[in-house]
Amino acid sequence: MSASTTPGGLRVTFEPFDLPLANPFGISRRTTTVARNVLVRAEWDGLVGYGEASPNAYYGECQESVLAWLPRLIDALPDDPFMVRQAVAQLEHAAHHNPAARAGVELALWDLVGKRYGAPIWRLWGINEQVPLSSFTIGIDTPERMAEKATAAAEYPLLKIKVGTADDVARLRTVRAARPDARLQVDANGAWSAKEAIAAIPRLAEFDIELIEQPVRADDLDGLLAVSRSTSLPVYADEGCVTARDVPRVADRCDGVVVKLQKCGGLLPALEHVQTARAHGLKVMMGCMIESGLGIAAATQLAPLCDSLDLDGNILLARDPFEAVSARQGQLTMPTGPGLGATLKP
Amino acid sequence: MSASTTPGGLRVTFEPFDLPLANPFGISRRTTTVARNVLVRAEWDGLVGYGEASPNAYYGECQESVLAWLPRLIDALPDDPFMVRQAVAQLEHAAHHNPAARAGVELALWDLVGKRYGAPIWRLWGINEQVPLSSFTIGIDTPERMAEKATAAAEYPLLKIKVGTADDVARLRTVRAARPDARLQVDANGAWSAKEAIAAIPRLAEFDIELIEQPVRADDLDGLLAVSRSTSLPVYADEGCVTARDVPRVADRCDGVVVKLQKCGGLLPALEHVQTARAHGLKVMMGCMIESGLGIAAATQLAPLCDSLDLDGNILLARDPFEAVSARQGQLTMPTGPGLGATLKP
Repeated sequence: MSASTTPGGLRVTFEPFDLPLANPFGISRRTTTVARNVLVRAEWDGLVGYGEASPNAYYGECQESVLAWLPRLIDALPDDPFMVRQAVAQLEHAAHHNPAARAGVELALWDLVGKRYGAPIWRLWGINEQVPLSSFTIGIDTPERMAEKATAAAEYPLLKIKVGTADDVARLRTVRAARPDARLQVDANGAWSAKEAIAAIPRLAEFDIELIEQPVRADDLDGLLAVSRSTSLPVYADEGCVTARDVPRVADRCDGVVVKLQKCGGLLPALEHVQTARAHGLKVMMGCMIESGLGIAAATQLAPLCDSLDLDGNILLARDPFEAVSARQGQLTMPTGPGLGATLKP
Repeated sequence: MSASTTPGGLRVTFEPFDLPLANPFGISRRTTTVARNVLVRAEWDGLVGYGEASPNAYYGECQESVLAWLPRLIDALPDDPFMVRQAVAQLEHAAHHNPAARAGVELALWDLVGKRYGAPIWRLWGINEQVPLSSFTIGIDTPERMAEKATAAAEYPLLKIKVGTADDVARLRTVRAARPDARLQVDANGAWSAKEAIAAIPRLAEFDIELIEQPVRADDLDGLLAVSRSTSLPVYADEGCVTARDVPRVADRCDGVVVKLQKCGGLLPALEHVQTARAHGLKVMMGCMIESGLGIAAATQLAPLCDSLDLDGNILLARDPFEAVSARQGQLTMPTGPGLGATLKP
């Protein structure tokens, strides 16, 4: 465990936070067995706030980079830890390409703010309690194993199916056969070329899917537009829309965007992302990395602002170290505890 | 005074709130001697929250329309008055073209939220205390009277000069002579055609001005772009950028936007406006209508998120009924009281 104290008296400690998964989890780019996250703990004026960094290799981060950058990020904090917007600006300046490390610190600060005022963050921000259904994600595996996972996830009426393999049709067919009544969304994580996507989507659509996430590579804006125009299904940008600043570029090329605290740097950047997307008339999905109930509780603060959710990161874990939001049958409930509303289990 | 109570138990009363000005105030469209506003009072669980509606004829509102619409707006409120985002959505649905009426209600709700948690709204939202200098506005009058007003405003180092007359040059000349060291901004309130603006700006620029606000009509987007390209001075859209939804349309055609609580419908719509503008790399000015210290205290909650301010509406009044932010020499300080931080004077 490492520790650092700001001139303003904020003591921040952090440590590796390894989260083994119940089952290996595959997407088009990689397979994960342990989420190697970082737990951040901020102490101030007798209060303790927790934050989680869930670094993602795609965005250039890993547990080691987060641990290496955190002391520099703590040095960049304002004296008053409640000035979170200033903290966000200073963290972005200090470590623009370390969004998960920044999110870990930012979440701990919000947890402090909420605990100071005795209220969940969503309450301080005037957010309501109507939470859309969250999907449960079926990672890439053999068609048979994906069908088994879909069956095992019988509790969840909405499944997100990872695609981008040489035979997505076979996978969708077995999943649909296993779960004839489920709502299905598909996520290619940028695995297709535009031509491949335009060919694949009508074949996958036969299995009654309701949206396509990131069909083409993040930087293929022409491809994104071509795919969006080729199908009546809503097309969402995820890797292609990392922060609010990316919204204007994708706004006329897709139907919705996926917001994640860990790719944009925390709750405030995520709120900006949601609001900018709304100003452009886009749909909004809130997603997550593989993270504990702490990170999921943080994302849930903004859930009522979104059209759909994919907040299942903690459900994939062998054991969740945090007591946080309940997610019965994919229906999350708003955290009622102060701050982020997650409690470390004994 | 009228009263209305929601099924959730929120009692809302409202009444005409006439604010005589110290001097008549002219812009290119009209001259005002009394601001005919509406005061909104929300009572809930032993707490009292205040909001102010400052209707502007340009946006189709007046005191009578606000008073007529308020009962319908109160009917549209959610049972839980702390779910302000839901309230904003329902108010927008109920009365899209009544932004000041909506703002009056929304501000009263935020005042309640802050009082409930014992903190100013800016604190609950993680905003810092660094407030940019506010301008003091010199309305349109004879060149001599404008020079006198500029001299009388010696306390204020930053002046906003209203233009859009047949002889703006004479007015700028006398103002500049009266205040050789002042920073000057000019606001045409859409009075010029693009051709007129492109001809006028270089002549006004001789008097050392630092920005131009709304040179052309709100809907003249081609003109806005032509004017922006014609000058090295920053060009801001005000009437041409009413809410966050307008930002994408003007973003590539100007350098900054003016956000006002009373034109977009309150603090949350204003926050969305600021954040969407930021996502587009635009500068942000926070402006106001002629309003009491209550409305100014509300706008000040977001002041540290802006590059510049024009929050002088209450200074133009013969008497401000609210004790709120101090604005010595144009330097506002953040309200320290809970909620909006304004107190009705005895």
